[in-house]
Amino acid sequence: MIEFIKELFPICRSITGNGVRETLSLIGSHIPLQIHEVPTGTQVLDWEIPREWNIRDAYILDPSGKKIVDFKKLNLHVLNYSTPVKAKMSLADLKPHLFSIPEKPDLVPYRTSYYAENWGFCISHNQLLSLKEGQYDVVIDADLSQGYLTYGELFLEGDSEEEVLISTHICHPSLCNDNLSGIAVCMNLAKELANTHRYYSYRFLFIPGTIGAITWLARNENILGRIKYGLVTSLLGIDSLFTYKRSRQAAARIDRIMEYALSKWPMKSEIINFIPYGYDERQFCSPGFNLPVGNITRVPFGEYPEYHTSADNFDLISEKGLNDSLVLFRHIIEFIEADRTYVNQFPKGEPQLGKRGLYNNVGGRNDSKKLQLAFLWVLNYSDGGHTLTDICMLSGMELSIILEAAGMLLSKGLIKAL
Amino acid sequence: MIEFIKELFPICRSITGNGVRETLSLIGSHIPLQIHEVPTGTQVLDWEIPREWNIRDAYILDPSGKKIVDFKKLNLHVLNYSTPVKAKMSLADLKPHLFSIPEKPDLVPYRTSYYAENWGFCISHNQLLSLKEGQYDVVIDADLSQGYLTYGELFLEGDSEEEVLISTHICHPSLCNDNLSGIAVCMNLAKELANTHRYYSYRFLFIPGTIGAITWLARNENILGRIKYGLVTSLLGIDSLFTYKRSRQAAARIDRIMEYALSKWPMKSEIINFIPYGYDERQFCSPGFNLPVGNITRVPFGEYPEYHTSADNFDLISEKGLNDSLVLFRHIIEFIEADRTYVNQFPKGEPQLGKRGLYNNVGGRNDSKKLQLAFLWVLNYSDGGHTLTDICMLSGMELSIILEAAGMLLSKGLIKAL
Amino acid sequence: MIEFIKELFPICRSITGNGVRETLSLIGSHIPLQIHEVPTGTQVLDWEIPREWNIRDAYILDPSGKKIVDFKKLNLHVLNYSTPVKAKMSLADLKPHLFSIPEKPDLVPYRTSYYAENWGFCISHNQLLSLKEGQYDVVIDADLSQGYLTYGELFLEGDSEEEVLISTHICHPSLCNDNLSGIAVCMNLAKELANTHRYYSYRFLFIPGTIGAITWLARNENILGRIKYGLVTSLLGIDSLFTYKRSRQAAARIDRIMEYALSKWPMKSEIINFIPYGYDERQFCSPGFNLPVGNITRVPFGEYPEYHTSADNFDLISEKGLNDSLVLFRHIIEFIEADRTYVNQFPKGEPQLGKRGLYNNVGGRNDSKKLQLAFLWVLNYSDGGHTLTDICMLSGMELSIILEAAGMLLSKGLIKAL
Repeated sequence: MIEFIKELFPICRSITGNGVRETLSLIGSHIPLQIHEVPTGTQVLDWEIPREWNIRDAYILDPSGKKIVDFKKLNLHVLNYSTPVKAKMSLADLKPHLFSIPEKPDLVPYRTSYYAENWGFCISHNQLLSLKEGQYDVVIDADLSQGYLTYGELFLEGDSEEEVLISTHICHPSLCNDNLSGIAVCMNLAKELANTHRYYSYRFLFIPGTIGAITWLARNENILGRIKYGLVTSLLGIDSLFTYKRSRQAAARIDRIMEYALSKWPMKSEIINFIPYGYDERQFCSPGFNLPVGNITRVPFGEYPEYHTSADNFDLISEKGLNDSLVLFRHIIEFIEADRTYVNQFPKGEPQLGKRGLYNNVGGRNDSKKLQLAFLWVLNYSDGGHTLTDICMLSGMELSIILEAAGMLLSKGLIKAL
Repeated sequence: MIEFIKELFPICRSITGNGVRETLSLIGSHIPLQIHEVPTGTQVLDWEIPREWNIRDAYILDPSGKKIVDFKKLNLHVLNYSTPVKAKMSLADLKPHLFSIPEKPDLVPYRTSYYAENWGFCISHNQLLSLKEGQYDVVIDADLSQGYLTYGELFLEGDSEEEVLISTHICHPSLCNDNLSGIAVCMNLAKELANTHRYYSYRFLFIPGTIGAITWLARNENILGRIKYGLVTSLLGIDSLFTYKRSRQAAARIDRIMEYALSKWPMKSEIINFIPYGYDERQFCSPGFNLPVGNITRVPFGEYPEYHTSADNFDLISEKGLNDSLVLFRHIIEFIEADRTYVNQFPKGEPQLGKRGLYNNVGGRNDSKKLQLAFLWVLNYSDGGHTLTDICMLSGMELSIILEAAGMLLSKGLIKAL
Repeated sequence: MIEFIKELFPICRSITGNGVRETLSLIGSHIPLQIHEVPTGTQVLDWEIPREWNIRDAYILDPSGKKIVDFKKLNLHVLNYSTPVKAKMSLADLKPHLFSIPEKPDLVPYRTSYYAENWGFCISHNQLLSLKEGQYDVVIDADLSQGYLTYGELFLEGDSEEEVLISTHICHPSLCNDNLSGIAVCMNLAKELANTHRYYSYRFLFIPGTIGAITWLARNENILGRIKYGLVTSLLGIDSLFTYKRSRQAAARIDRIMEYALSKWPMKSEIINFIPYGYDERQFCSPGFNLPVGNITRVPFGEYPEYHTSADNFDLISEKGLNDSLVLFRHIIEFIEADRTYVNQFPKGEPQLGKRGLYNNVGGRNDSKKLQLAFLWVLNYSDGGHTLTDICMLSGMELSIILEAAGMLLSKGLIKAL
């Protein structure tokens, strides 16, 4: 996945513009992504699609004419969504437009100005302190104009029209963990699922933060009722613990599944309650929608020192970090796919397994006692109110043996899909 | 408050009579108290208003004619609600009418005989042991006759007709903590609330224990449905922990609020479950009413050695003890007043705060991040099912910032009172 | 009880046959047991009544003609429900029909072959190892033929038609703890209850495992709605902890009562959740019935080394073990019998106890304060939603004083049976 992230890294993304388009196009070279373009000015819920931002170049020349800040070397240097500027100005006039982090003097911050017009440059605090009096040439060759908001969507139809929503943000420029990691993991997961039999339908969203989620919600209100499980995800590249934030419903199926899946995950993880701050779960879980959408990251935003700085680069993430995230998603998907209800066709007393060849020593296997027990669990709790995932959780048995037992019971007509 | 208690202390109160009237008259000199008089013999629920008791004097002369017990020096000396007596009798005949506490030989007990006719004197056990054989003159100049049960009530109307009930007992004679402390704190609280804007209506009861609550309930059945929060209170003068006893409902709004308010109180406190023994919550929480009424005291009845003795005097209570109780009540009232529901008018997605001037650096204040977060909490949970107090509890934020955020959202039309 | 078990021990029981009949006949000499006979081939739920098994003799003669295995000495030696056999065979041919426990080389295992035709002998592993090559004479003089499944039932009518079901299995041959202990305790309990006033009706089942429960359920579907409490019980002879396994409902009245009764039991006990494996609770708690039936044993099946071996004999059990089990059942029955609802006839405020002679010093007894408190608990919670057992649990008071207080309140007309 690191290779894919290397392709995406140099692109200057924002909430709108060609950076987003190029990114989606690269994702689309791996999966059949559908690209949506929504015109500037379109009303979406309480918001309006903003202007499209495109940038070609940006730099600062010091009084001696030396290029001391160069967008082409690091696109974080430009305040994201800056208005264009071309001016000569004193250091005093320039300073209000320079952003740095005094506590991390070597790092260039990532800053945006989406909903209040401004221009600016982000530089290290050490560089800021080194600037001398004099006249500076300042150029941001960008435009903010009528255009489109662009996002990508992939719908994978399953046997059921009930959906699993997986959403990740694509609006950050050259930051590896936040969120090229999320893009890479979601793209790979989508690619795998596209080639697998799916009981549930899956919908992947690659969207700009906040305005992207609001736009998608505004355009898809009619299908929201189908979303039975949802995850907003990002920050998947650091090799650290996982953090699951519950949906606003707090005890939705996705919450039970995530808690169980993480409890069975070999490494420590954290579960936190919903709070109305964070990523796009804020929108999916607004009270008028209240969708069963949780959030999964590794170490959460703001809780690692490289967050939103130039240090969120290839030193921070690892292939192992990315890959473990993908493996966790596979593990979660297994519990989701098993979250289906069968009904015992002989609910009064136990059905006689012996006369159906299901009693002991089935095929001489050496885990036949386990299988026997799995039959009893599946039969007893296939009462219309428990899914196979529930039965797995109740019994404490492995999901694989529960699935196998259910398959055999199904083939003998002892249970039937609800 | 100590000064006010000094005025009330000498009065000989009981469940009926002039002692109660004088007490209510002193309370009424500070707040516009309504006095109710209910005639002897009136049926109230399963009970009947008892006769009115008035006492003028009571004493014992020893065989030498010396006054050894004098009601005028300490009104605890008379068994409260004693029938009149004027007799000369031997020590043997007198003894069954003398009450003392062998385990606390220096203290005079407080005893009553409300519902079984009797007369008697309460003296220290040391004095009892010192009595010599001989003839004693015994006088209780009192009457038990047709009259009234008297109680005080103050209703403070609020914007809502939903009520907060606060009830305290006034039937004990010269005992500081039990319950001149409760009378003083409730009077002061009522005085403050009378001069404050109130969302809820408040009803203060100053009533004799048991029969007073039964009388009030019998006469006010029609308004009980308006009582949304209730507290029976007493024993507020000792500088010790607070003890909250849950209402019989156990999870009423008042219970949640008290638990949260006490958890935010700087000192240790205790929460106990409802039991059908104690103060007038026994009546308010009888199964036919089952009102949301809890009980708040400092150290509970019977659990301090001075309880119901002559040592419950000015040495036991303190201005600090009384004042902290009043401060706790103010703190509780803040949570009650905030226990109102608003509804987000833009529940689908987050409303755009920026275009309404509510996004970041609002007025340049330095807690603008906190305020921002408070906006999100209030917007997300103002779904018709959560009050501002609930949102305060959910978020863990200060009530003051939640109230401020709600005020600003209200003024921008983003939320509306339910 | 040991004496009774001595009578039962030699009988060779199975799921059908004369061993069961003799056992029921011995039980029936103490209690008025009703015997049911259900013909072979009858359809019962998903099962069919199997053939009747009767055995007269079984032995093995070694190559020298010596009787080395003799059913008449220990009936465990025969694979229970063996088909008949009379043959001379080599050790190699015999071996697949010999069952032993290598880990417990001195013990003879108890094995069955109910639902797959087979014949065999159970011997100690040491004996198995000592067998020499040669021709063996093998005789099992038994038949499997059309007949009946036999079970016993005792119904004790109470004031209420709501029932308590107590079921124990009778299909094991000479094993003391499993389950002559259960038979002896249930018989004695039934005998006691038959001679006591009963509020609830009691139904005792003495049935063969699995097929007996299925047969009874199939024939009694119409009365299942009356079963309010149920216990499947066995393994009651070892002097060890008690283990209660919750009903599938998990929070049925029987579960609350068992948890409370065991918490008040002087010795440690264990409570475990329902699992669909174990004894006949598997059938009673199958999803189509889902009856409020738990399981009570001492140390559970499979968790003591003598389980299902010849060591489950008189050395394993004790009169104390059996008697303590009976005492626990009496203790449980007290909570069940008290699990009745009364309704306070004066629910608004407390009724005046004094005018009814119930206030303090009732009859000069020295626990009058306790009784007073019990009156308040019973009055306050006799609201139609709490039984006396609930009130006992809520108050933490002794059941005996709650029952006494309820009796007095009932006699004064203050409460009434629902």
